[in-house]
Amino acid sequence: MHIDSDKCVIGNLSRVVTCDGGGPLIGREMRRLNVLDHEPVVAIEDGRVSYVGSRSRLPAALDTAEVIDGRGMVLTPGLVDCHTHPAFVRGRADEFAMRLAGATYEQIAAAGGGIVSSTTGVRESTDAELLAETTRNLQRLRRHGVVAVEGKSGYGLSLEHELRQLRAIGDAGEAADMHTVRTCLAAHSFPMEYRGSPEKRAEYFKLVTEEILPAVVKEGLAERADIFHDKGAFNVHEVNEFGKKVRELGLRLTVHADQMAEDGGGEMAAKFHADSADHLEYLDPAGVDMMIANGTCAVLLPGSTYVLKMDQWADGRWMIDAGLTVALATDFNPGSSPVANPAFVLNLAVMFCGLTPEEALAGFTVNAAQALRLSTDEWGVIKPGSRAAFALWDVDHEREIPYYAGSNSCLEVITCRGWRS
Amino acid sequence: MHIDSDKCVIGNLSRVVTCDGGGPLIGREMRRLNVLDHEPVVAIEDGRVSYVGSRSRLPAALDTAEVIDGRGMVLTPGLVDCHTHPAFVRGRADEFAMRLAGATYEQIAAAGGGIVSSTTGVRESTDAELLAETTRNLQRLRRHGVVAVEGKSGYGLSLEHELRQLRAIGDAGEAADMHTVRTCLAAHSFPMEYRGSPEKRAEYFKLVTEEILPAVVKEGLAERADIFHDKGAFNVHEVNEFGKKVRELGLRLTVHADQMAEDGGGEMAAKFHADSADHLEYLDPAGVDMMIANGTCAVLLPGSTYVLKMDQWADGRWMIDAGLTVALATDFNPGSSPVANPAFVLNLAVMFCGLTPEEALAGFTVNAAQALRLSTDEWGVIKPGSRAAFALWDVDHEREIPYYAGSNSCLEVITCRGWRS
Repeated sequence: MHIDSDKCVIGNLSRVVTCDGGGPLIGREMRRLNVLDHEPVVAIEDGRVSYVGSRSRLPAALDTAEVIDGRGMVLTPGLVDCHTHPAFVRGRADEFAMRLAGATYEQIAAAGGGIVSSTTGVRESTDAELLAETTRNLQRLRRHGVVAVEGKSGYGLSLEHELRQLRAIGDAGEAADMHTVRTCLAAHSFPMEYRGSPEKRAEYFKLVTEEILPAVVKEGLAERADIFHDKGAFNVHEVNEFGKKVRELGLRLTVHADQMAEDGGGEMAAKFHADSADHLEYLDPAGVDMMIANGTCAVLLPGSTYVLKMDQWADGRWMIDAGLTVALATDFNPGSSPVANPAFVLNLAVMFCGLTPEEALAGFTVNAAQALRLSTDEWGVIKPGSRAAFALWDVDHEREIPYYAGSNSCLEVITCRGWRS
Repeated sequence: MHIDSDKCVIGNLSRVVTCDGGGPLIGREMRRLNVLDHEPVVAIEDGRVSYVGSRSRLPAALDTAEVIDGRGMVLTPGLVDCHTHPAFVRGRADEFAMRLAGATYEQIAAAGGGIVSSTTGVRESTDAELLAETTRNLQRLRRHGVVAVEGKSGYGLSLEHELRQLRAIGDAGEAADMHTVRTCLAAHSFPMEYRGSPEKRAEYFKLVTEEILPAVVKEGLAERADIFHDKGAFNVHEVNEFGKKVRELGLRLTVHADQMAEDGGGEMAAKFHADSADHLEYLDPAGVDMMIANGTCAVLLPGSTYVLKMDQWADGRWMIDAGLTVALATDFNPGSSPVANPAFVLNLAVMFCGLTPEEALAGFTVNAAQALRLSTDEWGVIKPGSRAAFALWDVDHEREIPYYAGSNSCLEVITCRGWRS
């Protein structure tokens, strides 16, 4: 529901989960979501929350405002999905079947499937097709409660097509009425035409750092850069070079780290003061310490652990107890995580990563905003000054969002005129 | 979307998945869903499908009918959920947390949680509350594509409250505009007041068979009866007595069987020509043979296997290859399966029970209708004469319904005036 009005009040709510603790929620703070449950209302003026509290104390000036019926339900901040790959043009359901028949991620990649098939899709698409499908993907997330989404390139894998993906993500955000944070992931994988020799590999890496990233900065197409640190992808040396280059260019950094093996990815990310290190199934204690010291958030992506049927889940319990800022995201992508439902990610985090339901929700709201370096006074929270974008849930308590396992309990997203500007 | 018109045509569809193979789909037939993909349209007259085929061959008489925009998407029959427990008044998210902290299903039950807490909820509710919450639960399923739902009692566990539950399910079906098949599950568990001695146990069993079931029949409140055959619930002797009584009363039978251990439940169900045996994680070969011989369907409920974190998944692959009629259902209930999303159940069936995506969809449409003994010319299929109730999916191919793991790709349910009558 989009409210095309300068001033309105959302009432008839059972609970308003503000997630407001004055910033990202760390350690035991993650369990305190600051919930209002005495006839709470939320007032909005000019796209920002102007009041949140009990109906009886609503400022008199708002008495005449349009009233939106919350249907007795639970209101949370609109969700922030801080790690997605939405700029693809077709699903990979066939590959999903192949993997279930026994093929590994690596085998599918080696057989020309995996990322290569998404690359072909992006490269062969028209701009209109790419925009339409990217918009459709963002709308999928929005139907499940997301209002702000990080979107990575990384299927184009050439100057032209990485830029096309980033443009499509921005335009799709406009079309779907969602806020986007764009991340250049040209360092996702080596495209087919650069595989087979160390020289070609070096050539692609140079293309990324010397041409693609500078062009992205010049055209203002992304705020961040990401690199996939893994044995099948970019090595320690490359991550080091990449980190330096990204800093030089004034982009912020995030890293795909420690997904398949313990290889120091979290530590590498922290070394370059990355916004976040993501995946972290195999994060080691040195990584935790360094990430805490340097303010690098941990972004857990259990949707991919589930879809890939991995044995090793990220140990969110340990990370939270250690003091890391932990966020969750869908990792929405056509290969390892065709999961468009944050509530399912919360369920997985609770069932397999040791989080409580409250911690999981904090991870998809205010802590996800922190992972993207969005203001935690405006995003993933409901407080005066925050963005007028909410999710309305058909539950009696926010704990039930993960409990209705694999269901979408989001009745609708509510946004108000001017919320994105 | 409800179309309040006698005559309409759904057009602009990419695919119409008819699931029509002239009856339930068995063995390799489950992979052939009879899909139309050349500008398919579906025409509806007086609540029934009157034409399904290419637009170019649409009968001229329908040229003037209202046209519904299928938005280029995939249309399937409205889903049939053939095993649910929807008449409960509150979720059990706390118990979910307790189980994740290590308590077993049995321990929670022994501690007065589990079914007992739902029983208390039902017994303490007003009729209005029970109806409102049951309606809300059916609407949850409808938002995920379900139009016909089997609903069990089994939390009342007394004459008065079992009848109240069955009335609530029927009335909730009216309120949510869904078709309901009602099943009396007074033999779900022994209520607190009848536990502790074999005499009390016998007394409750007698109450079920001598009072509750006859009253249900007399008031016409259910078409079927169900019994939970398990070490913690009803034993072989009781199932035998129950089967005889149900037959005597002219009700149809279904059985909760072989969920926790291999104990001949499938065979018992088949012996009494039950519509279905449900769960079947531990079904044995003798059970398969007997079920095939007697026309008893296998209903798999992987949502509960997932939520209970059981190691043993029902071996759907084996059952289909053996020739059983296999269906799937959510088992929607507040304890072991708070799963309102059939697409997630399809995903689990594909990932853990060995089904293909097509087989899984057959299991939630025409085969689910067969499990409920609904006409497979009218339910779970799209063909002339079938009910005008459909699910519209935001996918490019029906294979993608389970592939978008844990997401709800159902854009909307479409029903047309008169579809339920």
